[in-house]
Amino acid sequence: MNEKDVYENCVYKKNGSINIAKLKIRKLRWNIRASEMSRNTLNPIREIVDGMKLSPNPDKPMIALSIGDPTVFRNLPTDERVLQAMKDAIDSQQYNGYAPSVGYLQSREAVANFYSCPESPLEAKDVILTSGCSQAIELAISVLCNKENNILVPCPGFSLYKTLADSLGIQVKLYNLQPEQSWEINLQHLESLIDEKTTCLIVNNPSNPCGSVYSKDHLLQILSVASRHCIPILADEIYGDMVFPGCSFYSLGSLSGDVPILSCGGLAKRWLVPGWRMGWIIIHDRNQAFGTEIREGLVKLSQRILGACTIVQGALVDILNNTPDEFYCSTNNFLKVGIEIENFPEFKNDVDFTERLVTEQSVFCLPAMAFEYPNFFRIVVTVPEEVMVEACRRIQEFCQQHYRPCSPDGNDLDQ
Amino acid sequence: MNEKDVYENCVYKKNGSINIAKLKIRKLRWNIRASEMSRNTLNPIREIVDGMKLSPNPDKPMIALSIGDPTVFRNLPTDERVLQAMKDAIDSQQYNGYAPSVGYLQSREAVANFYSCPESPLEAKDVILTSGCSQAIELAISVLCNKENNILVPCPGFSLYKTLADSLGIQVKLYNLQPEQSWEINLQHLESLIDEKTTCLIVNNPSNPCGSVYSKDHLLQILSVASRHCIPILADEIYGDMVFPGCSFYSLGSLSGDVPILSCGGLAKRWLVPGWRMGWIIIHDRNQAFGTEIREGLVKLSQRILGACTIVQGALVDILNNTPDEFYCSTNNFLKVGIEIENFPEFKNDVDFTERLVTEQSVFCLPAMAFEYPNFFRIVVTVPEEVMVEACRRIQEFCQQHYRPCSPDGNDLDQ
Repeated sequence: MNEKDVYENCVYKKNGSINIAKLKIRKLRWNIRASEMSRNTLNPIREIVDGMKLSPNPDKPMIALSIGDPTVFRNLPTDERVLQAMKDAIDSQQYNGYAPSVGYLQSREAVANFYSCPESPLEAKDVILTSGCSQAIELAISVLCNKENNILVPCPGFSLYKTLADSLGIQVKLYNLQPEQSWEINLQHLESLIDEKTTCLIVNNPSNPCGSVYSKDHLLQILSVASRHCIPILADEIYGDMVFPGCSFYSLGSLSGDVPILSCGGLAKRWLVPGWRMGWIIIHDRNQAFGTEIREGLVKLSQRILGACTIVQGALVDILNNTPDEFYCSTNNFLKVGIEIENFPEFKNDVDFTERLVTEQSVFCLPAMAFEYPNFFRIVVTVPEEVMVEACRRIQEFCQQHYRPCSPDGNDLDQ
Repeated sequence: MNEKDVYENCVYKKNGSINIAKLKIRKLRWNIRASEMSRNTLNPIREIVDGMKLSPNPDKPMIALSIGDPTVFRNLPTDERVLQAMKDAIDSQQYNGYAPSVGYLQSREAVANFYSCPESPLEAKDVILTSGCSQAIELAISVLCNKENNILVPCPGFSLYKTLADSLGIQVKLYNLQPEQSWEINLQHLESLIDEKTTCLIVNNPSNPCGSVYSKDHLLQILSVASRHCIPILADEIYGDMVFPGCSFYSLGSLSGDVPILSCGGLAKRWLVPGWRMGWIIIHDRNQAFGTEIREGLVKLSQRILGACTIVQGALVDILNNTPDEFYCSTNNFLKVGIEIENFPEFKNDVDFTERLVTEQSVFCLPAMAFEYPNFFRIVVTVPEEVMVEACRRIQEFCQQHYRPCSPDGNDLDQ
């Protein structure tokens, strides 16, 4: 401490009589320091985005490619049924009061039913509703880890895991994903990081930011490592079921025999409402490895600041039960089209597109066919700034020259 | 650790070749323990209420007198304008995406304008939106205190302060309120608790559970203690402005000269929607004692799990600007009538009521005139259970004998 402290007596008047309070130490000037926890909290995505001073050119509408927010461009609205469910919840006036800290029973039942499968049946007691998937991840890390522990986190991976762990004083060990193998986990590297202080393995599937969806075989290999070392898994499955047609998503909970899993999810991505802060933890524990202790710990932690807005909780039953399948399909179909190839009739596919881009503009992008993502291309952003700017200018010019608008009814495949 | 750990090599097959991973230690069986933080988290109110196994008599509708939730009995609905603001926010489809971690600018401006006063003008930069007042309190404690610090907490007082401090490993020192002096703070006791590790004084006004509203003079005395010792104040003002007609509520921020204040509030109580989890921190720092460090620390902490549901944030501008004054007045008027004295025409006031209760039933309740709360009475709940049950039976019988329904249009004072 820098300030000068003093011992003193304090003469104090009360009810007309003089009292002397025993004062030990008094600070002589203001010297308020932010806590270690706040100084150790660094969320690079939010910090950069929230801290930027953005002054868009008034002549050009803003294009934000910065955050994975499906609502920015207004071309991916949530389903009308989802909005109606919210308005019904408001009109009912049943969801203005406090909910139980883990969420309404009927809302937890709805999540359990939605994600239940024969191999891993779920009940309401296996679900805790949270303020967004971020709070789900925070509670899961908080219940599994003490300060002296470490967690295993994918690299590259979503920055929040490290942000939360750092703020709690928990060590992060980064395990490598393998870009040349569809971003599968380097299991050997993962296993080499495990020590006696490892209390949690974070698996993010589908992956943010890699976009990869792990095969059943790869997930079973991951489970095998966790089982061998008796390490519980935090499965960040917020992008669950958001896979391209023909691909399959397997939740770790549906595949695990003995490894206990806290699966974190929410409405944000699949229902396209990230701002609503509706998340959940699903507890998979067929082997009773969590026992009652972890369940009770999660309940206790849920009581600190409570969870999701009760209006969204109230709407959740309707949202999960009645959102039409077409909504999920059309979202996934939309996301699939990285290059809207129908607007570029001169080109067969992404390989054709990128080849011509080199021919005409000398810009080389990797066709994403290489990652089994046809009609995307991958650009790297590690080149010097002026090169990047020039590349974008050329890509733009290329697109302007070759773009052909479709007919207004673009859904009619016969046209 | 109880389990047996072993060193081993792991033979590992990859791409057809055999690899040997260097494995240091392996747990031989599952032994997952809940973290210290989760074990140290005890929210007595939520724990008791959420953990109770309630089987109401199907013949009698449930009467919950357990939690301070204004919505339970449905006789205190929020204003229609508040509900319409929410539906407008949903229909706009502008509030489905991510908000900045501290909240939308226009929503923070609305809070700043609502609470700004000439002595303590506020801007959007002085407001952080949170997931309920609980998260506001959590962020405020988290930014001001390290593990080795202590905070000063009222006794009796709201249990959440201790819950959050315990979970973060921060020491709680309880200062006494004085029931015989309208629950004012025992300033001498408060001052005697301050030491060099004290980094936060929590003042709860109006008080939960005491219901007291501090006078301007008493608030200035509290500020004087904080100023003398250079201790910042966390002002829990969630019940701000909920005072009986004729009483005045002063926010600490409006009175403070040099003492920096984090005022925590929200929609829960005054707007009767505690489940919506819309809270805020208002930073009062006329003397620049917080400097930039505490503000930046709060922003960082807000980035951990983000804050309030964007629909409620979107509706907030309308709620604060357009909720009619009559709504606030009628809520306060309703709360004022502890004994609905107009339904007991035989009695002049609460003193008369409680006297007759002794005469006829030999049950003695303290008329709340003693606390300057006319038309309430105070009951203590420290008597043995069977005595309490009998007392309630007798109060019920008494009310049944003397209750007279009012005319349906109870608002017409001429009738």
